[in-house]
Amino acid sequence: MFKSPQDVVLIEVGPRDGLQNEPGDTSVQFRVDLIDQLSNCGFKFIEVGSFVSPKWVPQMANTNTVLQKISRSPNTTYVALVPNMKGMEMAISSGISEIAIFSAVSNTFSMRNTNTTISQGLDQYVPIVELAKSRGISVRGYVSCVMGCPYEGEVDSKTTINVVEKLFSMGCREVSLGDTIGVGTPSNVRKLLKSIKQHVPVNAIAVHFHDTYGQALANILVALDEEIAIIDSSIGGLGGCPYAKGASGNVATEDVVYMLDGLGVRTGLILDELVSVSRFVSNKLNKPLNSKVSTALISKQNT
Amino acid sequence: MFKSPQDVVLIEVGPRDGLQNEPGDTSVQFRVDLIDQLSNCGFKFIEVGSFVSPKWVPQMANTNTVLQKISRSPNTTYVALVPNMKGMEMAISSGISEIAIFSAVSNTFSMRNTNTTISQGLDQYVPIVELAKSRGISVRGYVSCVMGCPYEGEVDSKTTINVVEKLFSMGCREVSLGDTIGVGTPSNVRKLLKSIKQHVPVNAIAVHFHDTYGQALANILVALDEEIAIIDSSIGGLGGCPYAKGASGNVATEDVVYMLDGLGVRTGLILDELVSVSRFVSNKLNKPLNSKVSTALISKQNT
Repeated sequence: MFKSPQDVVLIEVGPRDGLQNEPGDTSVQFRVDLIDQLSNCGFKFIEVGSFVSPKWVPQMANTNTVLQKISRSPNTTYVALVPNMKGMEMAISSGISEIAIFSAVSNTFSMRNTNTTISQGLDQYVPIVELAKSRGISVRGYVSCVMGCPYEGEVDSKTTINVVEKLFSMGCREVSLGDTIGVGTPSNVRKLLKSIKQHVPVNAIAVHFHDTYGQALANILVALDEEIAIIDSSIGGLGGCPYAKGASGNVATEDVVYMLDGLGVRTGLILDELVSVSRFVSNKLNKPLNSKVSTALISKQNT
Repeated sequence: MFKSPQDVVLIEVGPRDGLQNEPGDTSVQFRVDLIDQLSNCGFKFIEVGSFVSPKWVPQMANTNTVLQKISRSPNTTYVALVPNMKGMEMAISSGISEIAIFSAVSNTFSMRNTNTTISQGLDQYVPIVELAKSRGISVRGYVSCVMGCPYEGEVDSKTTINVVEKLFSMGCREVSLGDTIGVGTPSNVRKLLKSIKQHVPVNAIAVHFHDTYGQALANILVALDEEIAIIDSSIGGLGGCPYAKGASGNVATEDVVYMLDGLGVRTGLILDELVSVSRFVSNKLNKPLNSKVSTALISKQNT
């Protein structure tokens, strides 16, 4: 018999993690419309963009303009990714209330992604987090590749625990464990969560599953059983997988909510409203989305 | 903490349940090639076709020829669906060693599918099962719509238990519980399995999940925890959903095996071999398949 928490907080990452690889429309207006529709659905946290160079991620250009144009809901915390001090300065001038910082748990991935080792990357974040905190900006930490690295394969859970602990000691209020390539299965997910819970408070741990191998919901079920109550997901499964073209990336918010509804877990979200946003995104990007729930429900409506 | 059995038997339903709605190639030769490739993978049970009128299901025409042409493996039981006495006579002359019979648990579904009430349908099967047993042919029972009916919505688990008991008392050696429209979630799946286990032996119960709402693997995880060790699945997720065009149907065999491998559950199957069959089917039908694992692995190979 498994347990599940009464309430789960969903962190909607579609407008950032989802759109950052999107070849279609990522105009400021589209992002603003999407974010406003999501905050109307009642998400408490929405990742809205990142303060990275538009040379590297053109999809996230003008995140500051996006933040100016959205209709801010008092119930939503808007979060933006910050890779370096320059990004942090832009984040401050945008008036954001939470930033996200990130680290991998494999040196190869870290070098390829940010040209730093894991420990150099973490060191560079120390003054950034200090600056954020001095301005009253909260900080969320992301750890990628926790279930496996596209370059190194299996990763040592000791490295993951070490990175998670450093992110907390640096001042992150919450750390999200990312299965960036979606390779985890219920058994090794449980093993990792059991280890991590021995070192850091479970109520500050989020899970960020990719559905590349279809395992995301089964993994979430195990995470709930391990008392995790914060789940990252992406509307319509927006995102894809940069390491396997055409494969799925982020788990779809609607699919998570369908399961949580069935489990009687409260999210404060209404499935039909999410499906409407998913339909909007699908029409706007002119492609089918990676949510089985939206696909089934929209198809039923059209039949 | 979840339990899982050491060994699980996978029933491969692709060549029948998968292909029966397929608009593309369902020629005898393709079905023979597919079945032979699957028996080479080591499946202990393969559903190879049905003895129904080709007027109703042209895809399953000439199932007897398919059975003549395949290279029979001594380790594989080949199963064919039989809807009525005429089909049973064809099944006997084909030399099949196992038949499958079926019942719904909603009268509306039963009337629309076979123009009989649940109880009329079961009664009509009594002499068929008797005939099968007198010829040494074993019988598998299917119960459809156990997690919900496309016409009636929720179904009463008492009806399901009643149908399952009747199928066993009639002489079925195993009964497969089908979530025909894929609406079940881990919580109501567990509830149903717990009730059913009070009435019939758990080692003769199989689960048959559709992934229409993406819940199949999470539901299988719960089924394993409830001691279920027989799982129906379809190579490449072949099948689709007749009640929601474009939506997923049968859970993909590869996705199930990926999860079971991760859990350390033995299936006797090798993932890479399954992916090769999936690639063959995808090429033959000229369409992407509904397996996230095959999509990811084939894409990685091509990258």
